[in-house]
Amino acid sequence: MKNKIIACILACLSLATSIVVAKELTKDEQKVLMQLKQQSMQSDLSYQIIESLTTEVGNRLMGTAGDEKSIIWAVDKMKALGFDKVWTEEVTSTQWLRGEAKAQIIAPYPHDMVAIALGGSVGTGEQGIQADVAHFNTLADLKAAKPGSITGKIAFVSYRMERHIDGHGYGKAVGTRVQGASIAAEKGAIALIMRSVGTDDNRTAHTGVMRYSEGINKIPAAALSNPDADLLVNVLKRGKPVSVFLKLTSEIREDVVIKSANVIGEITGSEKPEEIVAIGAHLDSWDVGTGALDDGLGIGMVMAAAHHIGQLPTAPKRTIRVILFAAEEVGLLGAKEYVKVHDKNMSNHVIGAEWDFGLGRIYKMKSGVGAQSLNAMREFAQYIAPLGVALAPENNARAQSDMGALSDKGMPSVSFSPDGTQYFDYHHTENDTLDKVNPDDLKQNTAVYTMFAYFAAMADVDFRQ
Amino acid sequence: MKNKIIACILACLSLATSIVVAKELTKDEQKVLMQLKQQSMQSDLSYQIIESLTTEVGNRLMGTAGDEKSIIWAVDKMKALGFDKVWTEEVTSTQWLRGEAKAQIIAPYPHDMVAIALGGSVGTGEQGIQADVAHFNTLADLKAAKPGSITGKIAFVSYRMERHIDGHGYGKAVGTRVQGASIAAEKGAIALIMRSVGTDDNRTAHTGVMRYSEGINKIPAAALSNPDADLLVNVLKRGKPVSVFLKLTSEIREDVVIKSANVIGEITGSEKPEEIVAIGAHLDSWDVGTGALDDGLGIGMVMAAAHHIGQLPTAPKRTIRVILFAAEEVGLLGAKEYVKVHDKNMSNHVIGAEWDFGLGRIYKMKSGVGAQSLNAMREFAQYIAPLGVALAPENNARAQSDMGALSDKGMPSVSFSPDGTQYFDYHHTENDTLDKVNPDDLKQNTAVYTMFAYFAAMADVDFRQ
Repeated sequence: MKNKIIACILACLSLATSIVVAKELTKDEQKVLMQLKQQSMQSDLSYQIIESLTTEVGNRLMGTAGDEKSIIWAVDKMKALGFDKVWTEEVTSTQWLRGEAKAQIIAPYPHDMVAIALGGSVGTGEQGIQADVAHFNTLADLKAAKPGSITGKIAFVSYRMERHIDGHGYGKAVGTRVQGASIAAEKGAIALIMRSVGTDDNRTAHTGVMRYSEGINKIPAAALSNPDADLLVNVLKRGKPVSVFLKLTSEIREDVVIKSANVIGEITGSEKPEEIVAIGAHLDSWDVGTGALDDGLGIGMVMAAAHHIGQLPTAPKRTIRVILFAAEEVGLLGAKEYVKVHDKNMSNHVIGAEWDFGLGRIYKMKSGVGAQSLNAMREFAQYIAPLGVALAPENNARAQSDMGALSDKGMPSVSFSPDGTQYFDYHHTENDTLDKVNPDDLKQNTAVYTMFAYFAAMADVDFRQ
Repeated sequence: MKNKIIACILACLSLATSIVVAKELTKDEQKVLMQLKQQSMQSDLSYQIIESLTTEVGNRLMGTAGDEKSIIWAVDKMKALGFDKVWTEEVTSTQWLRGEAKAQIIAPYPHDMVAIALGGSVGTGEQGIQADVAHFNTLADLKAAKPGSITGKIAFVSYRMERHIDGHGYGKAVGTRVQGASIAAEKGAIALIMRSVGTDDNRTAHTGVMRYSEGINKIPAAALSNPDADLLVNVLKRGKPVSVFLKLTSEIREDVVIKSANVIGEITGSEKPEEIVAIGAHLDSWDVGTGALDDGLGIGMVMAAAHHIGQLPTAPKRTIRVILFAAEEVGLLGAKEYVKVHDKNMSNHVIGAEWDFGLGRIYKMKSGVGAQSLNAMREFAQYIAPLGVALAPENNARAQSDMGALSDKGMPSVSFSPDGTQYFDYHHTENDTLDKVNPDDLKQNTAVYTMFAYFAAMADVDFRQ
């Protein structure tokens, strides 16, 4: 019996060694992949694209002149980079105006504070509001307050975002920004001020989108810079009533329709042109800084990736589609429009990836593909491993940001995770500017996206399977 | 002969070994010194002083409400800390008002820029000025421009300050701030904009004092944040004319007299009360940030040092005088007044040191004393060596900042150099706030100042000799 078992095991081992997993890329294609890697690592094209966008356009919130200019810029840039097709798809919304923000501690110790309106907030009126502060350490504490317990007060949530490589401190902090105003209003507050969702120590406040719950009084909401939140906490520690003045001249204009557009460009496939490898970023930015990181980095990477592949002597088998989504910051409007317009041919999107996070090097890749495609993902992971990218064991990736909407419609997806340790120092602030872009990290990340797009366009695999 | 020489050498060696340099401090005094060190390293008093100043007063430029409040605060704090005598000495000046600053690139690519008026600048008028930019990489390049070559233009100097541990990049950069406007005016410019004298990458501009040369047209002068200076350089690189709008509502009011005061407090000496060990800092700050570093750090250190010594069971032999100078930022006005008022008893100031630089740990001490006092300095250096402070070989120290005026009048001086690597990220900006103070570094530095004051008050040496 023992001998039989050994014989069986040996036979199994023999079988195992005889299994040669077929590679998706031929030797020649692998050579091209390495050429593309080298080219991406040597070229400063992605940096030049970001420099052009931030210098010639600047910030570009939907509804602003910058947004209009960015659409023209993107179309022109794609054409200049030799894309085969370039077009726009309209996205509409109603208007929100930021106006100005002013926040002051009035008593017991007067101080000016640096504040910024949260995106979508109502204003206070020109006269502003002045009230005593009700302080909560966390959103949970605010939620736990009794209704009516802070009537007529300005609610202040001082929770500080934690710094982590994967940025998960953001998820723990952003709830106050998104829901805080309505929760504070339910308790009777007349405004919400909160510590910025950010990890820096600058007198620079972080904006970002907020939402009002149905049926709850809409109250103004603003973020304070970290040092100003510290100061307010220190003033509150004295135990005396603390009076704050807040003026936001923000305005929601439900009756004004503003227009933007997704900008789409393609390197047309040679063998399966109808099959789309989608790489994306969002074209809009907040109306502070120049959006160099958010999402200039993504724009630079995906445009350069498609250009490098488009310059090959032979076109890729599948079409590479670069999608620069409109109006991500104000609620993923471009992505929502895209999946509506392209609903019927969503199955043509064979795989996709977006960049909309961080500014460091990619260290991790997570797939979200059919089980039979995992070998192809492992093969690709081997190609990018020398760039310091490890394949995560999970296979449940949703594409980042906008492109998550395509993942939700069944598009196989990949998510590349960069080092996000520094990102929330700059995120949604005036400090999101070109000098924060590290050209070397950008080259490496561009190489990953270029290699991904080429691999996905050449691999003879159905990523849904 | 040879034997005689050997005998002579032996005799010399014997003599040498028999020379015991007398210590300035007795064994008991050395014990007290070590107690003071330990106390400073354990106490958070200096931090609490800075916290109190920045929270309850905030910024305090001469002529502002904050300056008035800071004088009351300092008097009260010295009394609360048990100083034996506390008084103020009036300092007057004429008024300068900052007003608001606005800078924009108008063409070819419109951008808002973050700018701040240099201290002492004239305004542009409410309507602002708009003109093409004449770009210079350095002040030397501006100086080299032909008179009339930039008539009607806005001169822009883009020189970037270098980061160094001893802050010497400041000296190389600050000339543009101080003299740039008059040099630009001589060449025909109608305004000066310059890259901030700072090492950070924030959208925060650095202010600081400037001067107009006699007989030269006074033109408005402002600093741009580093990222905005980068942006303007990148726009200029396109080679098209670049038009900038500048509005400063600053105002020089030669006819308005403003008042401030040096605040002085003493721990009275027991044996030689007329002999003064002076430790100082400046009480004023720029009207941005809360002056936590500049010069809250110094205020915290020297007040805590005097307090620790004042709490000893036995008073020090000499008097320890804490001088908080008025109006350092606008031209060392408090220091100038001090040496005028105390001219006749300047010789009573046996030694002095100020803190007005950096935010890191002290790593170097330089003396400026009589040659016969060098042994005493070496002895003191031995006491603070375990704190990581090395004695510099030179003996030509001038006290820092304000107290340099006392050094110039013959006061023996010591200068303690801290790590200044980070200082110019925050210097003269809104970001000079409490969160930048490192409590551990502060304890160590407070220990050095406390030990210095005690040693100087107890040492039986004439530091002028």
